[in-house]
Amino acid sequence: MKKLIRGLGEFKNSYFSDHQDLFIELTQGQKPRVLFITCSDSRIVPNLITQAEVGELFIIRNAGNIIPPFGTANGGEGATVEYAIHSLGIEQIVVCGHSHCGAIKGLLKLNELHEEMPLMYNWLKHTEATRRLIKENYGHLQGEELLEIAIAENVLTQIENLKTYPVVHSRLYQGKLKIYGWIYKLTTGEVMAYDPNSHNYVQPQSQVSGDLPDLIPAPAACEISLAQVTPDASENGSK
Amino acid sequence: MKKLIRGLGEFKNSYFSDHQDLFIELTQGQKPRVLFITCSDSRIVPNLITQAEVGELFIIRNAGNIIPPFGTANGGEGATVEYAIHSLGIEQIVVCGHSHCGAIKGLLKLNELHEEMPLMYNWLKHTEATRRLIKENYGHLQGEELLEIAIAENVLTQIENLKTYPVVHSRLYQGKLKIYGWIYKLTTGEVMAYDPNSHNYVQPQSQVSGDLPDLIPAPAACEISLAQVTPDASENGSK
Amino acid sequence: MKKLIRGLGEFKNSYFSDHQDLFIELTQGQKPRVLFITCSDSRIVPNLITQAEVGELFIIRNAGNIIPPFGTANGGEGATVEYAIHSLGIEQIVVCGHSHCGAIKGLLKLNELHEEMPLMYNWLKHTEATRRLIKENYGHLQGEELLEIAIAENVLTQIENLKTYPVVHSRLYQGKLKIYGWIYKLTTGEVMAYDPNSHNYVQPQSQVSGDLPDLIPAPAACEISLAQVTPDASENGSK
Amino acid sequence: MKKLIRGLGEFKNSYFSDHQDLFIELTQGQKPRVLFITCSDSRIVPNLITQAEVGELFIIRNAGNIIPPFGTANGGEGATVEYAIHSLGIEQIVVCGHSHCGAIKGLLKLNELHEEMPLMYNWLKHTEATRRLIKENYGHLQGEELLEIAIAENVLTQIENLKTYPVVHSRLYQGKLKIYGWIYKLTTGEVMAYDPNSHNYVQPQSQVSGDLPDLIPAPAACEISLAQVTPDASENGSK
Amino acid sequence: MKKLIRGLGEFKNSYFSDHQDLFIELTQGQKPRVLFITCSDSRIVPNLITQAEVGELFIIRNAGNIIPPFGTANGGEGATVEYAIHSLGIEQIVVCGHSHCGAIKGLLKLNELHEEMPLMYNWLKHTEATRRLIKENYGHLQGEELLEIAIAENVLTQIENLKTYPVVHSRLYQGKLKIYGWIYKLTTGEVMAYDPNSHNYVQPQSQVSGDLPDLIPAPAACEISLAQVTPDASENGSK
Amino acid sequence: MKKLIRGLGEFKNSYFSDHQDLFIELTQGQKPRVLFITCSDSRIVPNLITQAEVGELFIIRNAGNIIPPFGTANGGEGATVEYAIHSLGIEQIVVCGHSHCGAIKGLLKLNELHEEMPLMYNWLKHTEATRRLIKENYGHLQGEELLEIAIAENVLTQIENLKTYPVVHSRLYQGKLKIYGWIYKLTTGEVMAYDPNSHNYVQPQSQVSGDLPDLIPAPAACEISLAQVTPDASENGSK
Repeated sequence: MKKLIRGLGEFKNSYFSDHQDLFIELTQGQKPRVLFITCSDSRIVPNLITQAEVGELFIIRNAGNIIPPFGTANGGEGATVEYAIHSLGIEQIVVCGHSHCGAIKGLLKLNELHEEMPLMYNWLKHTEATRRLIKENYGHLQGEELLEIAIAENVLTQIENLKTYPVVHSRLYQGKLKIYGWIYKLTTGEVMAYDPNSHNYVQPQSQVSGDLPDLIPAPAACEISLAQVTPDASENGSK
Repeated sequence: MKKLIRGLGEFKNSYFSDHQDLFIELTQGQKPRVLFITCSDSRIVPNLITQAEVGELFIIRNAGNIIPPFGTANGGEGATVEYAIHSLGIEQIVVCGHSHCGAIKGLLKLNELHEEMPLMYNWLKHTEATRRLIKENYGHLQGEELLEIAIAENVLTQIENLKTYPVVHSRLYQGKLKIYGWIYKLTTGEVMAYDPNSHNYVQPQSQVSGDLPDLIPAPAACEISLAQVTPDASENGSK
Repeated sequence: MKKLIRGLGEFKNSYFSDHQDLFIELTQGQKPRVLFITCSDSRIVPNLITQAEVGELFIIRNAGNIIPPFGTANGGEGATVEYAIHSLGIEQIVVCGHSHCGAIKGLLKLNELHEEMPLMYNWLKHTEATRRLIKENYGHLQGEELLEIAIAENVLTQIENLKTYPVVHSRLYQGKLKIYGWIYKLTTGEVMAYDPNSHNYVQPQSQVSGDLPDLIPAPAACEISLAQVTPDASENGSK
Repeated sequence: MKKLIRGLGEFKNSYFSDHQDLFIELTQGQKPRVLFITCSDSRIVPNLITQAEVGELFIIRNAGNIIPPFGTANGGEGATVEYAIHSLGIEQIVVCGHSHCGAIKGLLKLNELHEEMPLMYNWLKHTEATRRLIKENYGHLQGEELLEIAIAENVLTQIENLKTYPVVHSRLYQGKLKIYGWIYKLTTGEVMAYDPNSHNYVQPQSQVSGDLPDLIPAPAACEISLAQVTPDASENGSK
Repeated sequence: MKKLIRGLGEFKNSYFSDHQDLFIELTQGQKPRVLFITCSDSRIVPNLITQAEVGELFIIRNAGNIIPPFGTANGGEGATVEYAIHSLGIEQIVVCGHSHCGAIKGLLKLNELHEEMPLMYNWLKHTEATRRLIKENYGHLQGEELLEIAIAENVLTQIENLKTYPVVHSRLYQGKLKIYGWIYKLTTGEVMAYDPNSHNYVQPQSQVSGDLPDLIPAPAACEISLAQVTPDASENGSK
Repeated sequence: MKKLIRGLGEFKNSYFSDHQDLFIELTQGQKPRVLFITCSDSRIVPNLITQAEVGELFIIRNAGNIIPPFGTANGGEGATVEYAIHSLGIEQIVVCGHSHCGAIKGLLKLNELHEEMPLMYNWLKHTEATRRLIKENYGHLQGEELLEIAIAENVLTQIENLKTYPVVHSRLYQGKLKIYGWIYKLTTGEVMAYDPNSHNYVQPQSQVSGDLPDLIPAPAACEISLAQVTPDASENGSK
């Protein structure tokens, strides 16, 4: 703790002093461009791995980077997503899992948590969709390999869950929101990005050259309304 | 009630007698091929409008044909979906809304329900994603037109919600489950089907000639795992 | 699915065309006289077994025809009951169980569901009153016999649960609502009706000749108020 | 507080000393014969008004003597009822409301509580069935008169709610449990008891002479099972 | 029950008649000075052991004298605490556990309750903090000794929980509320009081002579605001 | 987004390469010493302001740095606290609020959030204790001043809430856990620390010289058990 407190002083005297203009500007209000959802793991430092400046990343962190479906949990996840989109106007969300994730290790031996970590047990139920998918489709794998798949799938489960939030649903419909799935690899320091076209995790750098693919390739809802369809429909129907 | 009780006798003596083979076979177990989710509205008779025989449709009915996201509600919807897929092995789900829907009318004037129908008020919160989408994108519409859009969007919201259920998530991944969105129109007796390619409701008959488009055009999750990606990834990464 | 889609066309061209007057009338609004609560089982077709016309039955269907007590579940059951009574003015409710019910089979081996069908496991907790009654009073039975008792008791549990809903409570008090308990038997095509006088399931036809017994023989609440009682009470008390 | 602490000493030195045999016996275990559910109101002293000895009454007290329906609330009410019946084998429950009840006064002006007493507001929702009954049937009353009716109806609502508990449901079926509804009147010191035959609150003393009427006049469930009915049924059905 | 009913008459004719002035005064409104939270156990009679008069103790009773943390349970505990403090202006709370407590015995063998007393099982989760503390720190104890520690710790857990209620939090801050922890010992008829200075249960009588120690020795929140601190802070900071 | 992706590459090629030893060591497992709970606000970068290295801070972030009381919310906060303490053995928790906090601004005008940000509205209910304290004690303040007090009090509310978690409760009892309250000031870049002795926020640097005061000055529970007290107690009692 003393080390941290010394750090506070160092920060104030060096970094803060050196960037005073930025910090003064930020007191007028934050304008982050990305909602970054990641694990509480101490080995992930979002601003460091993305080299983002102070003020650029609005961040949710919990064990396992989980976002329960809308209405499920009265925790901070949904509220913070809502705040990010509605109040701050954020248009990009990154769900960033990571290799060696302790929460996902827990998910793979869920029943062992019940006695000693009952809250983790309940929390991981929100990503039961990951657990079931893994159990029903990857029963032949184990160890590292199984863990990596589970980590990758867990990110995609959260993206599905995010899509059930009213504020997300409406902005996706408007084409004003994009959601990305990332995995940060502790061993190499690199990030893999989910590519919805190939259904694969690929190097995000390879996507920079051309246009970035949207994770949600098209509005999730009908562009032409039922009302407009009706005439044609009854026309066809009368044949 | 007397009319219904007379009906019971008529059914037993006529229809049941005439189809005794079918009914005897069905006592061995049901093998429905479709989970049909629709409104409680008395004007919808699923077996009649699809001309399905006894034993063909496993049916969930509630006000507004709503399926709350996984984990949200401890009502019968999720449990019945789970039973349909896990226990009965059903591979097709139809979410069937309908024109003139009283529940969706309620959704469009939600605050009026709070005092007199508090349970409906809470129930409709599960399709808040529909309400927000409508409010933020169709503020210029009203009356019939607004209602029709809301009904159409409500079906799509439920499809998003369905995808958060573990058992649905896993089967979609395996390509063993398809989800369809329908609207039954009371005025014409016809059904419109959501077409994910055109983001439009179209005549389902037009889709019969060729192959039926899946609502979920591809597995919702990565086919090639992160584990398999790793070699290539590090290869690229080493450049 | 193609069969169903063909069915849609057949319905529109034949049944709908033949009953166009009824369907046009129904677009003005539904006026169902009965709220019919039954299982999702594909072998139950409510309008068929009661020979009811389109527009006569407002229907709730879920696995096990369960209505959780008021306030318990934020699923669609309570909201739909509320809508039926408050908004549509329905004055009769039928809770219709059925023989061979898979949900009740599940209830009798509840612990086996925990791993594979966790949502069913939780859902069936709402009819724990049935399970406990069966376990504490029918431990000597098994197989078919046990199942039939459980199915019959499950219907009565739901009737108790219904009585906790504010809208039901108030209408019962006014004598404006009646609740019936039925069991549909797949083997014979007949329906047995609960008779509160004999505490028995009997043939509903036998009840048609005379007056139908109410399931709730008298208002559940005091007709003469405490306020009115007071004078007599203090009179007696002063002796 | 000092007065209470002095009271502790007085109790120990006088009452406890004088009844040491009873207290020593009670350390072997309690065997209360009645579960007494009443309001937290300081003007109700259950052991005093019933002249019951130490060890005779197992007591639940909360604002408004409310027992939410089974599964609704994860508060202590249901658990304590379960403990009383299952663990202590109690066979009689008294729900005892009282005149001048502040909680029921709150119920009659519920919306005023929302801001200042949000927990009371939510708690009283568990007796919404009382509020709706009163509102829909006693709109013409006000003041004292309205309050008295609401207090009387509130007791009956809790009795309905109690019947949804598995342990209550099963014991009622066995005829091993009776539930009584009382109102204690602060002005006269007397208690009125609900009489299910006359649907009225009457003097409990008037019931002592003969046999006490059960509040639940007959098992709530079928005595003769569906299984036993079947033969007759099919007999009748074959005609 | 007949004994109780006879008791009602005796009370009315003797005690009530003898104290009519007090009772008439109390119909004007209650002014209890203490919120007394204790177990449902029939061997505890709060007014008797404290020799408190009618009208002095506002009482919450449930199995285990448990007050779940704010927001946890929608049972009557929190609502009744809120009513006591906000509506009645009570400024003293006693949480009174007792030796031989059946609920705490249950807590020490929690898993055995799951099947037969599921509601107790869930209810005791609210005092899981007690169970974990006992398990992690008193593994070497058993029997009576273990039970006594658990009973004593359970009282302190509830005091922690009480402090999370908004109305408690605010009054503690104002110095207008005090919370005491007591244990009533069935074998000796005496009460031990928690002494926060010695972290010990002591004789409350020993505290009467001098000033009663507050359980909460100082406001739980900052007396001097951050706003006021700022000048000094920046002063120090500029050194 | 492209900027972030470029940042990923830069990080990998520079920082990660330069600190490869640390990162390789960290793949063996994290050993963070502090659980750092702060707001999602983009202007807070925990590792930057404390100058902590990768691997030192286990981090929870949500809107308002709120930790609901134990059992209240099934969000990630409690689970992550449990994981931090039980699984990682963390012995120090910092709750770090910050000036200009948008979530706390929302708390001060809570009712305005209901329509547009219903999830934030519900989320902020978990810190209702802060709101009530402010409303009842700082009604005379407004603007910046009011906001600063609310931010400071909100941190203390969360510390109270943390103490209700079983794992926290037990470790505090053992003296193996310390909880600190901090406020980060955007305008000056400095952190103020709550000092429980002076009930004030002070410069943490001023505390480094001597021993750091514990926020929890003594075990929250009795050191000497009731069991041990008994002999003395009965001794005293026998006088």
